[in-house]
Amino acid sequence: MITVEKWGMLEMEAVGFTAGNPFTDYTVQGVFTGKNETVTVDGFYDGDGVYKVRFMPSFEGDYTYEISGSFSETVTKGSFTVTAPSANNHGPMRVAGGIHLIYEDGTPYYSVGTTCYAWAHQPEETIQKTLRELDQGYFNKMRFCVFPKHYIHNFRDPETFPFEGTPVDSSGLSEETFTYFVDFAGNDWDFTRPNPAHFRRMERCIEELLKRNIEADIIVMHPYDRWGFSQMDRAADDLYWNYVIARFAAYRNVWWSLANEYDLMRAKTLQDWEHYAELLCKKDPYNHMRSVHNCMAFYDYNRPWITHCSMQRQDLYRHVEYTGEYLAKYGKPVVWDEIAYEGNIDMGWGNISGQELTRRFWEAMLRGGHAGHGETYVHPEDILWWSHGGELHGESPARIRFLHQILSETPGIGLKRGNGDFDELVGVVDAMTWPDAYEIHYYGFGRPSFRTYRKDPTAKYRVEIIDTWEMTVTDAGVHSGTFRIPLPGKEYMAVRIRRIEE
Amino acid sequence: MITVEKWGMLEMEAVGFTAGNPFTDYTVQGVFTGKNETVTVDGFYDGDGVYKVRFMPSFEGDYTYEISGSFSETVTKGSFTVTAPSANNHGPMRVAGGIHLIYEDGTPYYSVGTTCYAWAHQPEETIQKTLRELDQGYFNKMRFCVFPKHYIHNFRDPETFPFEGTPVDSSGLSEETFTYFVDFAGNDWDFTRPNPAHFRRMERCIEELLKRNIEADIIVMHPYDRWGFSQMDRAADDLYWNYVIARFAAYRNVWWSLANEYDLMRAKTLQDWEHYAELLCKKDPYNHMRSVHNCMAFYDYNRPWITHCSMQRQDLYRHVEYTGEYLAKYGKPVVWDEIAYEGNIDMGWGNISGQELTRRFWEAMLRGGHAGHGETYVHPEDILWWSHGGELHGESPARIRFLHQILSETPGIGLKRGNGDFDELVGVVDAMTWPDAYEIHYYGFGRPSFRTYRKDPTAKYRVEIIDTWEMTVTDAGVHSGTFRIPLPGKEYMAVRIRRIEE
Repeated sequence: MITVEKWGMLEMEAVGFTAGNPFTDYTVQGVFTGKNETVTVDGFYDGDGVYKVRFMPSFEGDYTYEISGSFSETVTKGSFTVTAPSANNHGPMRVAGGIHLIYEDGTPYYSVGTTCYAWAHQPEETIQKTLRELDQGYFNKMRFCVFPKHYIHNFRDPETFPFEGTPVDSSGLSEETFTYFVDFAGNDWDFTRPNPAHFRRMERCIEELLKRNIEADIIVMHPYDRWGFSQMDRAADDLYWNYVIARFAAYRNVWWSLANEYDLMRAKTLQDWEHYAELLCKKDPYNHMRSVHNCMAFYDYNRPWITHCSMQRQDLYRHVEYTGEYLAKYGKPVVWDEIAYEGNIDMGWGNISGQELTRRFWEAMLRGGHAGHGETYVHPEDILWWSHGGELHGESPARIRFLHQILSETPGIGLKRGNGDFDELVGVVDAMTWPDAYEIHYYGFGRPSFRTYRKDPTAKYRVEIIDTWEMTVTDAGVHSGTFRIPLPGKEYMAVRIRRIEE
Repeated sequence: MITVEKWGMLEMEAVGFTAGNPFTDYTVQGVFTGKNETVTVDGFYDGDGVYKVRFMPSFEGDYTYEISGSFSETVTKGSFTVTAPSANNHGPMRVAGGIHLIYEDGTPYYSVGTTCYAWAHQPEETIQKTLRELDQGYFNKMRFCVFPKHYIHNFRDPETFPFEGTPVDSSGLSEETFTYFVDFAGNDWDFTRPNPAHFRRMERCIEELLKRNIEADIIVMHPYDRWGFSQMDRAADDLYWNYVIARFAAYRNVWWSLANEYDLMRAKTLQDWEHYAELLCKKDPYNHMRSVHNCMAFYDYNRPWITHCSMQRQDLYRHVEYTGEYLAKYGKPVVWDEIAYEGNIDMGWGNISGQELTRRFWEAMLRGGHAGHGETYVHPEDILWWSHGGELHGESPARIRFLHQILSETPGIGLKRGNGDFDELVGVVDAMTWPDAYEIHYYGFGRPSFRTYRKDPTAKYRVEIIDTWEMTVTDAGVHSGTFRIPLPGKEYMAVRIRRIEE
């Protein structure tokens, strides 16, 4: 008997025709029917005569399936049973209460992301190092690219390419001569023939993330290109997008990032992005998270198909501090996917301190937003986490994990900014029995030696001092009414106040 | 023979009538005539039958004077000679090139201020400590109040009061019960009788600052009041303003700050401020600097009588970084008189680090603005520099002095923001022979391990690495064209690039 857990991935495979171009000349489709849903999905050709169809069930119970298409004269039918989800399987990501992220099973999700754009394209040794770091539980989302990356600190050819063909010679490339304006001469690709090995490599990464409860924020297109993948024509784009969706959509941890820095992709128009979005909405039956990440200009996050804001800061000085404004403007979750990286490279987007990056996380998240990490320390072999993965060298990951632990203790479905004095940031739960049931007061770069709180004199409050840098939580007793809490006069302190029952 | 140096202060005194109220019942006036100017000023009653008239000459050479008025039946006439200014006497402050501060003799002025609101009202021991700190040359402007101050950390009565009368009992005041809403009951003042001892105390402070080349940014009114000085009627206000002008205007280092946090003075209207300004413009023949300092809402710095913007930051996160916007909006010098203080008190306006305050100074000043310091460390005797003066405990003053030393090396009359990459702040001289003659690139909280500069390949540039925190300037050689400068990967670094002749 075939079984799969709810929100697990069921893969059916069948051998089919190989004459001509199996990627374009044949269709393959699956229909999956249970008591509560009937889902029709496209399959894909995986090479060597093998066609595959993938499915993620959203309900427990008995299902039937039917695999058909021009790829074969045989229609395959059968049945399977969907079992209860395992302990760490909370389903795909959804939006709740307008602005909050929540797993489909109702578990709140506080996104502490990281970015390793090209980690999937690295040699096995580097991937193993990356996985060991991810084992530490610092992050629960990762942004990474399907297409290989051509950018400073990243000129080596990837381990695999997404299409059959021959890449331009990469020797002689250097930081000094890097430019976005590449003519793509010297490349020879057949965009009608995806390279299954490349996509299996991507899937292995998605699965490794899934094992670690990390959402896979897949960047489908990007401008860092010397091969011409950013300038394919509409037919090639559509083939690529359909292939990506058919292969990846059944993984519950997938998010679709249509592009990184879409506004740097000079060959693409807004119509193109809307077209890809339409395709996604049509072909992804699971409605995974969808967004587009900017360099300068935000995409119009009001577009109905966009599930959340995937933002890069637009100002060097004030950015995550605008989270409330963007929540109000777009009425969607705000995910700060790029707010500068901890590191010491020459560029300002990659040389802030661990303290400052951690501060930005707290500022974003106590306002009800989410934040993403990256690391760009100069490295003797030029292996930078932000691009390659590998080993982490910074101070922020442990603090980000600590922040997530604190956030996970929030009751309700998420935080929002609460009322506070001018010089503090107060995060409160979004909907609770009492208005002051749970508050985190954060002081950022302020260094108060004490703070006075004015609460209900008829209620009792448990007070804790949180050192967000030293990662300690210290009990400061139970108080009522107006009370003064001594603090160490250091930066990056927070105070949590929880109303307690007698 | 009477002599006074140019921009020095000449004081003439004469004995006069004492019947009735000499502060209101008699007039005293001086007319001072030299080859290039005739200046008519009001004098003032200084107690004990003595009337005084003060004058600051703006030209060298021979002058005559005539003291007259209803205070006496005698008209005093005479002559004096104005000699050249002494070495550190550069004259009163002026505005040049629209947005720059410059002494009247043409010496550029980069304002590194501090604030000791109530230092003039302290016991001699504290004043001596303050003066010893000022001897260190950290600052070249100080903001302080004429009226005593009623505010947290400052409930003790001042050494002297500005009027004859009896103050409300100050016992039992505390931080916890502090409020702006005082009914002033228990005070008994005669607002028609200023207390000369109080004003002499102020003048002694102005003179001590003058000796140290520190501008005296005199706060004439303020809202921190338990005595009713912030709610006097128009007649009392006018008497006070006239008395202040008659006494202080002849000191070349005087700036007029009409108020601190004018928008918190609930008894005063915009019409009142415009009235005081009109009075100042009419009665101060030297046209000292004039502005009004905000709490929340900026005063309208476009008003023609305002010489410069005296600003308090309006946002916790981004403030001095708006300097360029305000320079463009108002076309006047931008002086950031309150950008939070180094310290560790509970309030966010008084608990930032020395590093952060120093960063704010650099950000303000490389954009062509000016900045002010304050210090608010918790102190066992509750003596805080920002209010009382006393001893400094912070790390920023030495760095501010270092910054001023760097700024003083700027050619021309001032800095402005130049072109730079997105992740650096570049200060350039406002008008020079070559557009790239002199540049300071500042990296703030960025930590670059190197930077690449693209300059004219046919010119030569002297490069220096400035550690703004460690206060070092390190020669990095002479370069041309595109060159890369190694940096220590630390926060708060700057690079100065000067075009040099062969």
